[in-house]
Amino acid sequence: MKSLFQIKTSTDSSEESRIHEDILGVDRPLQIYLEHLAPQEDAIVSLKARGEIEIYSPTHQRIETPAFVPLKQLPSITLVARTFSDRLNDRSLEIAFQDETGYPLSQVQLKFTCLQVCLDVDADRDGVVDRNNPHKSSWKWGREGHGAILIVNTDRDSVHSENQYDEGERLRGLLDLQDSSFMIVRRAGLEELPLGCELYLSVSQETAQRICIYDELENGGNELINPNKTKAKIKQTDRDILLAVKGLSYPDIDFDGLVEITLSLVKDRETIYSDRVIFRVAPWMMTPNTLSPFMVFVSRLSQGDNETFIEDLRKVAAQANVQLDPVPYEYHKDDPWMRDEIEIGYTQAPGKFIHVVLDSPRDRGLDHLTNRQLISSSFGYVIRKSRHSATKLDSFGNLEVSPPVTVNGVNYPFGRIIFGGTRPEIIQEPRRKLKVLRDFFFAQKIQAPFEIFSDWLSVGHIDEFMNFVPAPTAKGFKLILASPDRCYQLLQQLQKAGHSQALLRQGKQLYQKPADISVAEVLANPELASHNQRFQEYINWNRETLKQELGLGEEDIIDLPALFDNDDGRAEAFFPNMVNLLVLNQHLAIPKPFGPQIHQQCQFEAYVEGVLGPLGLVCHFIDDWDPYFRKGGEIHCGTNTSRQPPTQKWWEIEPMFFS
Amino acid sequence: MKSLFQIKTSTDSSEESRIHEDILGVDRPLQIYLEHLAPQEDAIVSLKARGEIEIYSPTHQRIETPAFVPLKQLPSITLVARTFSDRLNDRSLEIAFQDETGYPLSQVQLKFTCLQVCLDVDADRDGVVDRNNPHKSSWKWGREGHGAILIVNTDRDSVHSENQYDEGERLRGLLDLQDSSFMIVRRAGLEELPLGCELYLSVSQETAQRICIYDELENGGNELINPNKTKAKIKQTDRDILLAVKGLSYPDIDFDGLVEITLSLVKDRETIYSDRVIFRVAPWMMTPNTLSPFMVFVSRLSQGDNETFIEDLRKVAAQANVQLDPVPYEYHKDDPWMRDEIEIGYTQAPGKFIHVVLDSPRDRGLDHLTNRQLISSSFGYVIRKSRHSATKLDSFGNLEVSPPVTVNGVNYPFGRIIFGGTRPEIIQEPRRKLKVLRDFFFAQKIQAPFEIFSDWLSVGHIDEFMNFVPAPTAKGFKLILASPDRCYQLLQQLQKAGHSQALLRQGKQLYQKPADISVAEVLANPELASHNQRFQEYINWNRETLKQELGLGEEDIIDLPALFDNDDGRAEAFFPNMVNLLVLNQHLAIPKPFGPQIHQQCQFEAYVEGVLGPLGLVCHFIDDWDPYFRKGGEIHCGTNTSRQPPTQKWWEIEPMFFS
Repeated sequence: MKSLFQIKTSTDSSEESRIHEDILGVDRPLQIYLEHLAPQEDAIVSLKARGEIEIYSPTHQRIETPAFVPLKQLPSITLVARTFSDRLNDRSLEIAFQDETGYPLSQVQLKFTCLQVCLDVDADRDGVVDRNNPHKSSWKWGREGHGAILIVNTDRDSVHSENQYDEGERLRGLLDLQDSSFMIVRRAGLEELPLGCELYLSVSQETAQRICIYDELENGGNELINPNKTKAKIKQTDRDILLAVKGLSYPDIDFDGLVEITLSLVKDRETIYSDRVIFRVAPWMMTPNTLSPFMVFVSRLSQGDNETFIEDLRKVAAQANVQLDPVPYEYHKDDPWMRDEIEIGYTQAPGKFIHVVLDSPRDRGLDHLTNRQLISSSFGYVIRKSRHSATKLDSFGNLEVSPPVTVNGVNYPFGRIIFGGTRPEIIQEPRRKLKVLRDFFFAQKIQAPFEIFSDWLSVGHIDEFMNFVPAPTAKGFKLILASPDRCYQLLQQLQKAGHSQALLRQGKQLYQKPADISVAEVLANPELASHNQRFQEYINWNRETLKQELGLGEEDIIDLPALFDNDDGRAEAFFPNMVNLLVLNQHLAIPKPFGPQIHQQCQFEAYVEGVLGPLGLVCHFIDDWDPYFRKGGEIHCGTNTSRQPPTQKWWEIEPMFFS
Repeated sequence: MKSLFQIKTSTDSSEESRIHEDILGVDRPLQIYLEHLAPQEDAIVSLKARGEIEIYSPTHQRIETPAFVPLKQLPSITLVARTFSDRLNDRSLEIAFQDETGYPLSQVQLKFTCLQVCLDVDADRDGVVDRNNPHKSSWKWGREGHGAILIVNTDRDSVHSENQYDEGERLRGLLDLQDSSFMIVRRAGLEELPLGCELYLSVSQETAQRICIYDELENGGNELINPNKTKAKIKQTDRDILLAVKGLSYPDIDFDGLVEITLSLVKDRETIYSDRVIFRVAPWMMTPNTLSPFMVFVSRLSQGDNETFIEDLRKVAAQANVQLDPVPYEYHKDDPWMRDEIEIGYTQAPGKFIHVVLDSPRDRGLDHLTNRQLISSSFGYVIRKSRHSATKLDSFGNLEVSPPVTVNGVNYPFGRIIFGGTRPEIIQEPRRKLKVLRDFFFAQKIQAPFEIFSDWLSVGHIDEFMNFVPAPTAKGFKLILASPDRCYQLLQQLQKAGHSQALLRQGKQLYQKPADISVAEVLANPELASHNQRFQEYINWNRETLKQELGLGEEDIIDLPALFDNDDGRAEAFFPNMVNLLVLNQHLAIPKPFGPQIHQQCQFEAYVEGVLGPLGLVCHFIDDWDPYFRKGGEIHCGTNTSRQPPTQKWWEIEPMFFS
């Protein structure tokens, strides 16, 4: 609370010295120590107020004036004004002292000008800036919660890279404003602030790294606050001032997402009045398979390498009522792994939504993709860079998000992020996702990430052994897992049934050699068997982890036959790996496995249709052998999708699972 | 449905003539009359398709190709493509004819390029532009409803005045965009449209009068559609194009508020593909007394004429936690009637809200008010002008809105607009609100207006005899009415109790003469009595109308003592008219009536406190005699308020009461 001690210092007795002008902030109490003003301890105080001003005793009694009180009973008073002045010095308080005999000893006349400035935001989350919302300076989760929200809409949020901020970055015209949040500096009353009064906007050093604030929006915007500027003077005007706020970086290990902005009314370096607002920067989020897709992206490789594949996939897309967008050469330079270079997530605030591409540090041919208008006119971009070089585990085939789950009573309405890591006790030369990526995922909070084990695969992506498909169950989905065991079972059954000469990979080439191999030959290979037994154990380990972290039971899991070859101790698919499928609503684009045929019917396909068909899923087996399988991936690796976000908003949940 | 009849016309037999290239709209069926293409009736048709294309028979059977069918069985086919092309002519259909012997007769090869263009709006009302929302081309009321919404954010919506539209009005910088709605023209696939293809945006002549559409937002905006331009070409680009849409006029007698916008893909003057969206222009709405106020406006008259009044009012505002904004001379030129020149309403859309000032055709000193930043940085303005000159009934003291009511089961969650008119059978030289105003009110629909009788008053404003105050009842409010009868009752009681010499209007001046008059003198005036009896009948007539139209009972009405003088047959207040009070939350600023006093207690004030106090209302009687009463008005006439809008949104209701 401000105090008016300085009056005491004026001791000469000229008339002027007894008149003191001051600024009073609306609703900001001012304490006056009468005992310091009084000429003698046993004086009688007389108070006379003019204008809308409230006076309280130290015991918070309201004092109506004129009043006469012994100083001892009233050593100090507190003044509060509830309304602003439309004229200078329109409130006054006359403090006079006299002795018991009523002889006047001294007097002071205080004149006040009452000012109100207000910093407003959309604290009630309806997309409209409020008027002095009482909750504007705090942030609360949930439907009944409050607190303003900011989205990051810089083209490049690369906080961890070198040039983390381009000086003087202007708003990119009107478009940029669409994704900005707004603040309003409201003033009323006096058309001009009293002499010596100034308004300042300020943030902490840390906050300045995270946001840009612009004024002069009508002229294209001018930076008030940026990473190099923590404090700015607000231009003198009697009008409301509309400010745009732009987030520069997503929450991360060194940033919890909350930013605080203060508006101060300052006179002679003393803060008379200040108002505070808080924003939370919206997290980056991922969309699970079970959400319906807008668009499927695929590289259109040169020499028509995947032309047939694209046409096959297009027909599946057509049935699923999804569009297919084959990306021209210039954006991929024949890099077929559309899944690995980017993850198409999103970020949102009340009335704002943009897709946001997380760019993998993988940086191969598809790194050019983000030069293209990818998802829509405005989409965000974020990247995390590291001093350490990326491994295959940093590709986003090694990143998934589960559909919504409830685990031991804890609800994850936006699912949980899953990525693959290592098990040093098992793996030599272990690989793990870069820390900058792991930190980023965890910092987004909402999709509570966890790590599983993918380093046993030579490519090291979780989409080589797991995937999610929609299902008409209470949970709404099934986890599908690659299963060598299931594959061996099927092959043994075929052998028993006298089909041991049926061929896998029939008529296909591998390393310039025919890839045909009979059921008998596969079963007669003890090395292959022991390796697959080992790989099955790794998958089982993940199975248990996934059951635990996603609250799944065996009934929620489906095994698809798969076989892995040994590649210096790590695994790579022996035939096209069906689990690496693409989910488009009820339609599944599945790598054609080229399994043993009986009556022209591939037995692997038959099995998969047998287990997935009953879920209302339509299986489309597409030949991806040459363009993808032979290069070490499948359909899921070779495609990417932008999906409809969930209708629920992240700020409406109460993330009880937060650490 | 488009048809491919023109092929028939190419009759020469050169190879080229049999190859036909065409554009196909995604999901837009194309019918081909084989019978017109066939060389002979008994031919056999052979069909061979390439690429994602569906073929149907006249009986809607799906036809897989290659197919061989007698022409008789297949006189025509229908083609549909579900996905767009990323390369020219990537779909084809070969139609060959042969005779029964299999001898080839003729053939045509059709090559198709499939295009999809999409015009998107925020049809689900979440403030974000959707992607091809299936409901975007229709509009439905209610929580479960759909349809995009537009607000009018021109500075001056004066459709009915002369210069109704300023050519080439640019967007006023970024600020204007805040209140604009958006559309997105989405394209995908081919980076360039095929030769000869163009995109057009178009609206009807009528719609063009109501909106402006802008492109090139990043460069300050360029007008595509405006009142002088119903059709515009969309610039060639592979990017999404963001368009801003701005409403130019509110619904009115000649405009139901719905605007339809069409995007067409045209080749060689033929429309190949078109997409349609609908917006509803948000209505202008009023805020009832029961909503809590942001700000009270009052003219600060020169020579300090109302300085004391302002200070008294400020103290009431302070207690009600409301701010008071005394407006300087330049904006009112000593026009004290703040209520009469403007009505501060609002308009809103998802994520958008602005206060909107309706400017009365009254046009006295306060007409300058709208040059001032009145409510906030962005507030709208609307005026309705007429060839006929305005009367006192066109002032907005003669305009009110009720709190929410339910009448015979019909719910009016935003209350009903009420304005005063005449009763020709009773009144000579009858006056009525201008038709342009009445039409405007009715056209806004939501607040279902009705007209009552105010022409019996010389000033002719309903706020001279009626008002609403909040009340802790089921309805949430009480209607208060001026009552001569109640006044006479009180005076007679006083006379009985021997106070016949008590003075009304004590110590006050009227027409440069002392205004003092005793209870006895008032009661002894038969003329005054008979006039007030007549005025009471008019009030009673309104009482019944209000009960009917607002679904009120006697228990919802409170009578306040009032007395009227005769002014050429019409009424004017005899002493300050208490019903003309200002409601600030639970606090009432009431004109001090200067009624007869007993023990220094004004008996009129005592009565009013007696009936309003129990409702939790705090009565503040303010002396408005000199600055307002003597000039023919009171506190309500001399003030205006901006109020918090209701939380409910107008588009969420289903207005069953619409005519």
